[in-house]
Amino acid sequence: MGNSFGRLFKITTFGESHGTAIGVIIDGCPAGLPLDLEYIQSELTRRKPGQSKITTQRKEEDRFEIQSGVFDGVTTGTPISLVIYNKDQKSKDYSHIADKFRPSHADFTYHEKYGVRDYRGGGRSSARETAARVAAGAVAKLFLKTIGIEITAYVSRVGDISARQYSELDLSQVEQNIVRCPDTGTAEEMIRLIDQVRKDRDTVGGVVTCVISGAPAGLGEPVFDKLHAELGKAMLSINAVKGFEYGSGFEGTKMRGSEHNDAFFEQDGKVSTKSNFSGGIQGGISNGEDIYFNVAFKPVATIMQDQDSVNEKGEPVTVSGKGRHDPCVVPRAVPIVEAMAALVICDFYLVNKTSRL
Amino acid sequence: MGNSFGRLFKITTFGESHGTAIGVIIDGCPAGLPLDLEYIQSELTRRKPGQSKITTQRKEEDRFEIQSGVFDGVTTGTPISLVIYNKDQKSKDYSHIADKFRPSHADFTYHEKYGVRDYRGGGRSSARETAARVAAGAVAKLFLKTIGIEITAYVSRVGDISARQYSELDLSQVEQNIVRCPDTGTAEEMIRLIDQVRKDRDTVGGVVTCVISGAPAGLGEPVFDKLHAELGKAMLSINAVKGFEYGSGFEGTKMRGSEHNDAFFEQDGKVSTKSNFSGGIQGGISNGEDIYFNVAFKPVATIMQDQDSVNEKGEPVTVSGKGRHDPCVVPRAVPIVEAMAALVICDFYLVNKTSRL
Amino acid sequence: MGNSFGRLFKITTFGESHGTAIGVIIDGCPAGLPLDLEYIQSELTRRKPGQSKITTQRKEEDRFEIQSGVFDGVTTGTPISLVIYNKDQKSKDYSHIADKFRPSHADFTYHEKYGVRDYRGGGRSSARETAARVAAGAVAKLFLKTIGIEITAYVSRVGDISARQYSELDLSQVEQNIVRCPDTGTAEEMIRLIDQVRKDRDTVGGVVTCVISGAPAGLGEPVFDKLHAELGKAMLSINAVKGFEYGSGFEGTKMRGSEHNDAFFEQDGKVSTKSNFSGGIQGGISNGEDIYFNVAFKPVATIMQDQDSVNEKGEPVTVSGKGRHDPCVVPRAVPIVEAMAALVICDFYLVNKTSRL
Amino acid sequence: MGNSFGRLFKITTFGESHGTAIGVIIDGCPAGLPLDLEYIQSELTRRKPGQSKITTQRKEEDRFEIQSGVFDGVTTGTPISLVIYNKDQKSKDYSHIADKFRPSHADFTYHEKYGVRDYRGGGRSSARETAARVAAGAVAKLFLKTIGIEITAYVSRVGDISARQYSELDLSQVEQNIVRCPDTGTAEEMIRLIDQVRKDRDTVGGVVTCVISGAPAGLGEPVFDKLHAELGKAMLSINAVKGFEYGSGFEGTKMRGSEHNDAFFEQDGKVSTKSNFSGGIQGGISNGEDIYFNVAFKPVATIMQDQDSVNEKGEPVTVSGKGRHDPCVVPRAVPIVEAMAALVICDFYLVNKTSRL
Repeated sequence: MGNSFGRLFKITTFGESHGTAIGVIIDGCPAGLPLDLEYIQSELTRRKPGQSKITTQRKEEDRFEIQSGVFDGVTTGTPISLVIYNKDQKSKDYSHIADKFRPSHADFTYHEKYGVRDYRGGGRSSARETAARVAAGAVAKLFLKTIGIEITAYVSRVGDISARQYSELDLSQVEQNIVRCPDTGTAEEMIRLIDQVRKDRDTVGGVVTCVISGAPAGLGEPVFDKLHAELGKAMLSINAVKGFEYGSGFEGTKMRGSEHNDAFFEQDGKVSTKSNFSGGIQGGISNGEDIYFNVAFKPVATIMQDQDSVNEKGEPVTVSGKGRHDPCVVPRAVPIVEAMAALVICDFYLVNKTSRL
Repeated sequence: MGNSFGRLFKITTFGESHGTAIGVIIDGCPAGLPLDLEYIQSELTRRKPGQSKITTQRKEEDRFEIQSGVFDGVTTGTPISLVIYNKDQKSKDYSHIADKFRPSHADFTYHEKYGVRDYRGGGRSSARETAARVAAGAVAKLFLKTIGIEITAYVSRVGDISARQYSELDLSQVEQNIVRCPDTGTAEEMIRLIDQVRKDRDTVGGVVTCVISGAPAGLGEPVFDKLHAELGKAMLSINAVKGFEYGSGFEGTKMRGSEHNDAFFEQDGKVSTKSNFSGGIQGGISNGEDIYFNVAFKPVATIMQDQDSVNEKGEPVTVSGKGRHDPCVVPRAVPIVEAMAALVICDFYLVNKTSRL
Repeated sequence: MGNSFGRLFKITTFGESHGTAIGVIIDGCPAGLPLDLEYIQSELTRRKPGQSKITTQRKEEDRFEIQSGVFDGVTTGTPISLVIYNKDQKSKDYSHIADKFRPSHADFTYHEKYGVRDYRGGGRSSARETAARVAAGAVAKLFLKTIGIEITAYVSRVGDISARQYSELDLSQVEQNIVRCPDTGTAEEMIRLIDQVRKDRDTVGGVVTCVISGAPAGLGEPVFDKLHAELGKAMLSINAVKGFEYGSGFEGTKMRGSEHNDAFFEQDGKVSTKSNFSGGIQGGISNGEDIYFNVAFKPVATIMQDQDSVNEKGEPVTVSGKGRHDPCVVPRAVPIVEAMAALVICDFYLVNKTSRL
Repeated sequence: MGNSFGRLFKITTFGESHGTAIGVIIDGCPAGLPLDLEYIQSELTRRKPGQSKITTQRKEEDRFEIQSGVFDGVTTGTPISLVIYNKDQKSKDYSHIADKFRPSHADFTYHEKYGVRDYRGGGRSSARETAARVAAGAVAKLFLKTIGIEITAYVSRVGDISARQYSELDLSQVEQNIVRCPDTGTAEEMIRLIDQVRKDRDTVGGVVTCVISGAPAGLGEPVFDKLHAELGKAMLSINAVKGFEYGSGFEGTKMRGSEHNDAFFEQDGKVSTKSNFSGGIQGGISNGEDIYFNVAFKPVATIMQDQDSVNEKGEPVTVSGKGRHDPCVVPRAVPIVEAMAALVICDFYLVNKTSRL
């Protein structure tokens, strides 16, 4: 339970931070998709640790292996198993917290739920698991490219430094700086802030914005499986995420209906909306406009400082800051957000094939 | 697809705004629960239209009928069918928009997806469907009461008028005013704002906050089915919702890890946290503290003003403001938010029974 | 749990034998299907009690009502709720067994599982529930007709009286006699046997055979959701079913591979098989030939004789034969088998739309 | 789609006969189960090819590796990934059938469904996939042992040579001969028959019987997910299976209700039945008696003889008998049947934890 995502394009992930390997089975990928392995690798590389001075220094090349589901370079419709072996675990770094609960980590809750846990690097609750999602998301993105759907995420805020609105930005510039913010001047500030936070042996949160363009009208299912509900769940399932909003989001709640409503008009046979406070989704179903949303990430819980806590016996202990960690998670979260978005869109695209006679 | 919610405590709803009836089948409710019918009715009454001057004037008593799953007043473990007959549909009110797309409604997207739609009152996309959720949620709440879990939601913002933090409020006062805000002075302001908006033939958005107390540690499943991910999906599936955040939420992204981390301490054999920026959830699993979250509602799309739009042929048309609608949805959304929260908690409570040998 | 069936074309049923109503929600029926209500009624009439001298004399007209999902006579893609009110319950007939376990009924197992049960007419375990399946199956059959798939079941054995092989029979003759066996002479014998068994205040079992013609190649999913595995589950979920076999079935286990293999040949651009021991399914996926299978029904457990048993306290009691019951279930099972087959095929047809790019 | 099985104890398998590896992710195994790796290996060894003169001579040691979900020898509640690398693929053996459809194999149906396929050794449709099931089933059996449930299968028929009824046999003797039939004299005959068939370059079918003892009353869910329906699906999903029957099965259809009903009696506070035609299941729910069922396996499709067929272009071709295959599949099917039964029982055991308040 809990380790699968999707209805028709469905993934199941496994693996702990310091185990042998992490991986994913993709079940339901349509047959006939040429699988560009270099693209999958490049997506993993965007997420991998140690990629710049503002990320954790754990060194993982995150090379993957495909074990099934592909023949002569093309998907066959059978499950695609994709595995990434762990290389640079330093499990000894964690022996000092074997029986301690790190503040705002999952140590305590896993202990309460399961009675037993792999404490090394957070075990299953580690964000290392998201490498498997990025690999699966890359397959989904390859599928979406064949139907003209593009997904681009970027860092829109670090701490209280915000980028401009997405409509004012050139999204092709996301990869031009290490913080993955296409608003160049702001990106510099963000990098400086993260660097400062790192020196302070502290961490800071931020926001990732994602834009999906080229999606046809009709994606999403009524009532419970609304497109934005599933996107929300997908994003909230990413480590450290605290909030999700799409279209006008929380700010939109302050508006009047007369301002907020998106007027329809027709041009060249296509119905569009003049504004897009709806975020491309109405009644839970895509309307053909850009789909966009924000994802809030809290400051990383692991800080390089001593903290008060308790151990498994309930005794007071000090948790000292060790290990290799990100001072700010959002730059590496960008490909993860894209991956989860791709999985949702891909799944709903397939489901939508059956909506009419 | 899309009309079911939950894994073990699972609901499936049906019904259109102007059809014969709406209803729900609850599958997986444990046997042996005494079903307090008056309580279920009282929950429906909290949601029903026409309850005060700041809600729609459609008159529905929302009387329900149980058709199965209960014997001698007790649940039997078999599906509980609960039906509410529609009484006060005024379908003629909608003939003028039969082939028009109302701005920011689901008319266009349903048309694109299905090719055919029941245009009367929004058909399936109407918030009338949520009566079925409230009825099912009432059953879930009855179950949760037997294990000491309480769920309380309230209006924390209307437009830009905000209540104080939940920890400063007396949640037993929620039902003391028609806007369902326990911050009395603020409630008056909110009511005045909604009344003004109504007179302006306009609408306004707001925020509902929900607090779950008494939940044991261990609820939620790792990775994709994190407790807050499922709560987020549940909330985002409610009509007009644009965002979800829990614990520190979007504001928390501006904090440093050293401020944001919730320190553990032990007292009388129970491990607790000093602060609760985590919102009672760590690594997707409840930690025994209060679970709290905010839900953003956009301004209602139906306004009593003429709006430009197009019809099914793509021709420009005017959509005139008719029908009976809420100037602000949040007061009536309070029991809906509670119902969806109850369904999520109930489901995860059952799932968690199987987490250990 | 347990009251839903299907992936994309999904049904959820509710209702007890002596409750207010039984019914079904169909979720995932494609939009745009004209719903022939008379056809649905005619299918219910084929299943209804009291239809001939060899069935139970309970009188239920089994009139249904559609509460949602249909607009202007056409499905809209939203859930179709279909309800049948119970009319001729004679619950008093059951007061004598309120705390007794009838032999080979579900009284004991429901009691053990749930601790509480609706004992009247078997409650949820009654075959009355299958009326909801037949109604849903009729919708599925209407869908399948639009793509040229026909499903026909018939009684192929009663006790030890067997009809000829399906390939030697004219399946259009199934409804020409009350036992629903198209092998006319044999049908007479079967009717005589059932009549004799009824006079003996006893019951007898039998076999229903089902043939699906016109199904395209490609239906069914590899590994666990093989077409025949899902058909098997569907059939085994029908009350009183003890076995399922398709194609050569149990007899085929005695054959040599060299006899059993179905040789491929090509004619007019279509690949077919010379024999069809495979029953139209190879590797769990349809190959375009007729799909056929047998379903074994045990003798009905309710007999008009006194039987030894125990009550809820474990005390020895006599269960006396009362109430109105079928001496042999297979004639009325024919439309149920067809309905379940239609649901499976319909679901896999939709799933298969996503198997390729 | 199609590669997962189970609700709470859920497996997803991957892998092709001649790919890199096959494997399984087990999601939902309760935490705290000591994982006896030697036992898992011994189960794989019972299934492995090349184990005796009457099985295929492909040599696979079927050594497995656990990649996650286990810490200090105990399950942690997170997904268990189990992988088996393929060693002795001889893919060249298959080049002669790259574009041919072998009679009664899945070549044609996969081609029709997916347009592309891994033809080597049957690809995904190969029974090699069942090694993953046996590994997962071994974990399930370890869990079931902790609650006193034992599952034993054996060969009850080969061709037309049948063993005695299970109640007359000593099931501890199953592994005493290579055909896995505890009826010693009959076992000899069966071995001779298989040997003869092999010499004839042909194959023959058979039946496996399975007995589950120690299962408590209450397993199975009403209506669609009846215990025997899920067992039936599980068995029918195994390669080469053509039929399933439980309790009195097809023979029971010839009986009268008065003979077939299982009378309840009480002894030492436990309610039991005098006979067990019900096969331990009433109304789809276990009643505490032995659960037993038969599974029919067709003769293996690969024979060492030339056969007429067509290729992908529809041209007539000869398929010649090459490769290494089983002359009769039932001896190696015994652990597969047990594994699938264990998965079903384990899953329903967990689900049943939530049936009552």
